[in-house]
Amino acid sequence: MAGNTFGKVFQVTTWGESHGPALGAVIDGCPPGMELDPSDIQKDLDKRRPGRGGGESPRREPDQVEILSGVFEGLTTGTPISLIIYNEDAQSKAYNHLQQIFRPGHGDLTYLKKYGIRDHRGGGRASARETAARVAAGAVARKVLAENDISVIAYTVALGDVATSRRNMKDITKNRLYCPDMAAAVLMEEFIDTVRKRGDSLGGVVEIQATGCPVGLGEPVFDKLDAVLAQALMSIGAVKGVEIGAGFRAAEILGSENNDAITPKGYRTNNAGGILAGISNGDPIIVRAAVKPIPSISLEQDTLNLDNEPVKIKVGGRHDISAIPRIVPVCEAMVCLTLADHLLRQKAIEN
Amino acid sequence: MAGNTFGKVFQVTTWGESHGPALGAVIDGCPPGMELDPSDIQKDLDKRRPGRGGGESPRREPDQVEILSGVFEGLTTGTPISLIIYNEDAQSKAYNHLQQIFRPGHGDLTYLKKYGIRDHRGGGRASARETAARVAAGAVARKVLAENDISVIAYTVALGDVATSRRNMKDITKNRLYCPDMAAAVLMEEFIDTVRKRGDSLGGVVEIQATGCPVGLGEPVFDKLDAVLAQALMSIGAVKGVEIGAGFRAAEILGSENNDAITPKGYRTNNAGGILAGISNGDPIIVRAAVKPIPSISLEQDTLNLDNEPVKIKVGGRHDISAIPRIVPVCEAMVCLTLADHLLRQKAIEN
Amino acid sequence: MAGNTFGKVFQVTTWGESHGPALGAVIDGCPPGMELDPSDIQKDLDKRRPGRGGGESPRREPDQVEILSGVFEGLTTGTPISLIIYNEDAQSKAYNHLQQIFRPGHGDLTYLKKYGIRDHRGGGRASARETAARVAAGAVARKVLAENDISVIAYTVALGDVATSRRNMKDITKNRLYCPDMAAAVLMEEFIDTVRKRGDSLGGVVEIQATGCPVGLGEPVFDKLDAVLAQALMSIGAVKGVEIGAGFRAAEILGSENNDAITPKGYRTNNAGGILAGISNGDPIIVRAAVKPIPSISLEQDTLNLDNEPVKIKVGGRHDISAIPRIVPVCEAMVCLTLADHLLRQKAIEN
Amino acid sequence: MAGNTFGKVFQVTTWGESHGPALGAVIDGCPPGMELDPSDIQKDLDKRRPGRGGGESPRREPDQVEILSGVFEGLTTGTPISLIIYNEDAQSKAYNHLQQIFRPGHGDLTYLKKYGIRDHRGGGRASARETAARVAAGAVARKVLAENDISVIAYTVALGDVATSRRNMKDITKNRLYCPDMAAAVLMEEFIDTVRKRGDSLGGVVEIQATGCPVGLGEPVFDKLDAVLAQALMSIGAVKGVEIGAGFRAAEILGSENNDAITPKGYRTNNAGGILAGISNGDPIIVRAAVKPIPSISLEQDTLNLDNEPVKIKVGGRHDISAIPRIVPVCEAMVCLTLADHLLRQKAIEN
Repeated sequence: MAGNTFGKVFQVTTWGESHGPALGAVIDGCPPGMELDPSDIQKDLDKRRPGRGGGESPRREPDQVEILSGVFEGLTTGTPISLIIYNEDAQSKAYNHLQQIFRPGHGDLTYLKKYGIRDHRGGGRASARETAARVAAGAVARKVLAENDISVIAYTVALGDVATSRRNMKDITKNRLYCPDMAAAVLMEEFIDTVRKRGDSLGGVVEIQATGCPVGLGEPVFDKLDAVLAQALMSIGAVKGVEIGAGFRAAEILGSENNDAITPKGYRTNNAGGILAGISNGDPIIVRAAVKPIPSISLEQDTLNLDNEPVKIKVGGRHDISAIPRIVPVCEAMVCLTLADHLLRQKAIEN
Repeated sequence: MAGNTFGKVFQVTTWGESHGPALGAVIDGCPPGMELDPSDIQKDLDKRRPGRGGGESPRREPDQVEILSGVFEGLTTGTPISLIIYNEDAQSKAYNHLQQIFRPGHGDLTYLKKYGIRDHRGGGRASARETAARVAAGAVARKVLAENDISVIAYTVALGDVATSRRNMKDITKNRLYCPDMAAAVLMEEFIDTVRKRGDSLGGVVEIQATGCPVGLGEPVFDKLDAVLAQALMSIGAVKGVEIGAGFRAAEILGSENNDAITPKGYRTNNAGGILAGISNGDPIIVRAAVKPIPSISLEQDTLNLDNEPVKIKVGGRHDISAIPRIVPVCEAMVCLTLADHLLRQKAIEN
Repeated sequence: MAGNTFGKVFQVTTWGESHGPALGAVIDGCPPGMELDPSDIQKDLDKRRPGRGGGESPRREPDQVEILSGVFEGLTTGTPISLIIYNEDAQSKAYNHLQQIFRPGHGDLTYLKKYGIRDHRGGGRASARETAARVAAGAVARKVLAENDISVIAYTVALGDVATSRRNMKDITKNRLYCPDMAAAVLMEEFIDTVRKRGDSLGGVVEIQATGCPVGLGEPVFDKLDAVLAQALMSIGAVKGVEIGAGFRAAEILGSENNDAITPKGYRTNNAGGILAGISNGDPIIVRAAVKPIPSISLEQDTLNLDNEPVKIKVGGRHDISAIPRIVPVCEAMVCLTLADHLLRQKAIEN
Repeated sequence: MAGNTFGKVFQVTTWGESHGPALGAVIDGCPPGMELDPSDIQKDLDKRRPGRGGGESPRREPDQVEILSGVFEGLTTGTPISLIIYNEDAQSKAYNHLQQIFRPGHGDLTYLKKYGIRDHRGGGRASARETAARVAAGAVARKVLAENDISVIAYTVALGDVATSRRNMKDITKNRLYCPDMAAAVLMEEFIDTVRKRGDSLGGVVEIQATGCPVGLGEPVFDKLDAVLAQALMSIGAVKGVEIGAGFRAAEILGSENNDAITPKGYRTNNAGGILAGISNGDPIIVRAAVKPIPSISLEQDTLNLDNEPVKIKVGGRHDISAIPRIVPVCEAMVCLTLADHLLRQKAIEN
């Protein structure tokens, strides 16, 4: 009930603070007999690892995952899979000055008021570092999906106000920003440079696509597939909006344009984003998440200290300029977790 | 697990089909000793009742709610509150011709493939009529919130591509569309007329505002308050997008603009939409839901019949032109349910 | 979380008070496409209906069940099944004098202190009448089990200190007490007569047997099949003890006697009661529930009134002398609900 | 849903196999601001540690617990508390010969059939070693209870057919068996010696008492306090029966004897075991668990091998003669977890 568990059959519980000894995830409900090797998980973790690149935090974390249970001789056993990632490069002292001050746009103040106490080191549990555990668990979910020929891929469709004009899937792995439009990727990098020099930050939009999903996933009425995807993505700290298929544009067009005609070859369009009445319809599932700019900026901002006095703050430390691209594998992970759970939920009632 | 339950402490389970004998909700976890009268619920139900107005279905449903349990001498007892609404004006025969054909934009096909069977009468469980039970339960949640000085109001901020240019809260009750901008309301009504004549339909955007919410509601990391609100709203059939505060616009602006500066008088702006790190921050909570056009249109559309043959369909029957305004109280109800649940969840860990 | 829901896949929520307008159950997660007729449920309800017999309450309740949703043209649709039973013979006035006084052995005092309010009429939610909803839901679970060739039967193995000396299953339906030993049944009836004349009450032991259960049901570690069965049975108001297989006797014998040797033909004995390490082993599942004497007796007892003053009480009204035999179908129902849920839970992880 | 999580507000998920690298527990929902030091947990773990004594396994496990998250500067933060215990003395090879054979009384066969795979080393997840994680989590629950002046103590009331004849609470810590009757403890030790020499094993009965529990804990109808206690205790591998208060004896006596009269000074007797209608009544909560003999015995037994052929087995390895006394702190832990959860559940609905 305290909110650190996601899923009902494929159920994940994460734990860990940014500057504690470790963070991890426990997966309960993974089907037995599935091949699982740490390298399967490491691959996804490496995608969110901070790199040398311009827009990213210079914090060095090998983020090496260990499997502590639930796997025997390379196969899952049906018992809980415990994953752990030790924190190695946590420079807690760099955050000491933040103990007395609330960073705008962060959860410093809300955490303190909710719990009456907060681990201020690196944002504690509110740190984006928490998502490493999600990515690790998501990699296991991805294997469950792969066994059912479902694949999930996420990519950047906008960075600040620079949008992609096409989705060339082959380009995604060719640039650091996971952008399916090489020309846009170049503009995005330039924009990152400009923003970094100004000491500011920026956000963007991530699109996630799931293909191969069978018809029938999703549980009306409250656990509609799109509803749970919305929760899954909105639960990522930086996400402020989620839309499915035509999304907000569907609110502007007429029914005759928005409806996807049904033909013997399938749906003629995919404004539904692959989900009808909360149930997957066999078309690719398309979801987008709006990512806000990283709140840690080196520009001066107004805020309060612990004594409720107005102070100025410039947030230093090792921060990314944008949650993109590191949030991209996190979005992927959350969609993988959602789909794996619904795949197993559907099996419970099928013959 | 089958998805008809929402909430963890204030827990609601709904049931019922559009053309079955009745529909209802069971609320488990409502605090005891609270005054509750059927009229408290009826008031909200009346807001979503089909009216005589231009854009709405002429179906007549008194939607009279009865309380079957959990209330004794006008007070809640802490035991489950069972609410029932009998279906009185269900003209099932009007739907007989739809038994053999899949309506585009509806869940006909996905329901059939998921369950291997479907109640085709009026959309069965996938009918918007299902939301009557949500509104009934939401009215009880609203009372829980009112006892804690929290109030929730929803209103129309766009109908098709007609947007409001101001939010004059006093106007909301002065027009049929719950629009906080009388000038826009007039344009919206004209647009509805045009679209109805064309046999088409339209959507829009609903904004929901919660005021009086204390700091501290929301459970990191997966049950962040915004994440659960996103699920809550996206679980309404017609909703295809949800955003909090600045929402998708946050993805376009810089961090220095998006961050809400903290002053001794409170946050200077509210781009966060009242939620920071998944926890309410004391500011008004602002959420928007994108509503797609109603898929039932009288224009001819391509689809398939049960034999997988291509056919043309014109959906007749008694349908609204737009889910707005009837979806407005449904959005309110879902936000009430979410907040009441999180209010009680927070109490469990507070001293 | 408020405790009126049972099961995780086959999930039942019950509601209703003894003297409210009705009571009922909502089943969420019943597989679609299963034949279900009200008569399937009525059959089980009739087994717990108060009869004319000596030991039973003379209250007349036809206990006619109605199916309000989730069934279309005789088949389950996969959506929630709402069951309702109207209360027709509730003589609330007979309980008015109990408003000011706490009956020993009942939940009057604990309900009042927990909730700060209580529906005193007939025990409100704490009445044994609440179990009618369980029996109704259990009948649906029984159908799910029957489709998988699992059957569940309960019977009386002791009434007060009169125990059965054999289990002749054919005798169960031949006597009013569901006793598998006709000779013992005669002694039990005599005992009931004696106790009734004394104005006292008595309890007994119910045994439940499930046959045809496949190997593999039960979820280690906390949701072991025996653990959930224990919860299921102990959740019946009058039950004060539960044991599986050899049960408490297993605590007295040595390992060499208690272990069930494994042979090519199966287990040589069944001290395990069909469950090993929390998982069904294919043998009949054997559980016993200890039922306390009904607390309502016409003998004078010491208690308090609302003003905390000592008073004497003789509980009149229409009461059974023993919860047996009416509790027998309730035990059956709880075992059916548990097994149906675990059957579906297992399907979610099987290939 | 896979059963490794217990509790709804104070929610514990355990993981780990007997011979994996580690085992642990994640506690989600512990109230913030509570002092918590590893030594608080270690104290309870030490009570279940294998000792030098006659009846216990000579396996050496320091069972040193580490807190990996959720505690900051000695106080709980409200975020998940991750506890880990590394396995250090796991001699897996000692179990290699058991890979091909099913031990009677163990879960070897049921695990294999349920999951299609099993970690045979030391019983894998089915090992009693799993309970170390429960004891660790239970120690945290105990602190939550202590802050509310509730204390829980367990003790041995029977070992095989040697029963205690008195409950002298001061004696509990004076003998290795946690027996509140020193004379009985001597007889029990003699019995253990006899049984060990015969190569056999034995069980017994553990009683758990909780004092200081306020009136009002427990959630009717399915989550009655006694129902959840029954699940909690029955979920311990060796437990085959659970009873509350008078328990099975209540089935034998008359209502006039079983009812606890209510007086201005409280209940005159405590046959209810501190729970009425599923809700704590303020009296000490008394529960008993029947513990079966340890199935691993060195006497020859009939069983099957992987090829379904009949074979003889003598189980060697390092095993206890009886689950008592090491199961005593496990019973305590499960009761602590149950009460802490219900304490917080009750807070959610209280004013």
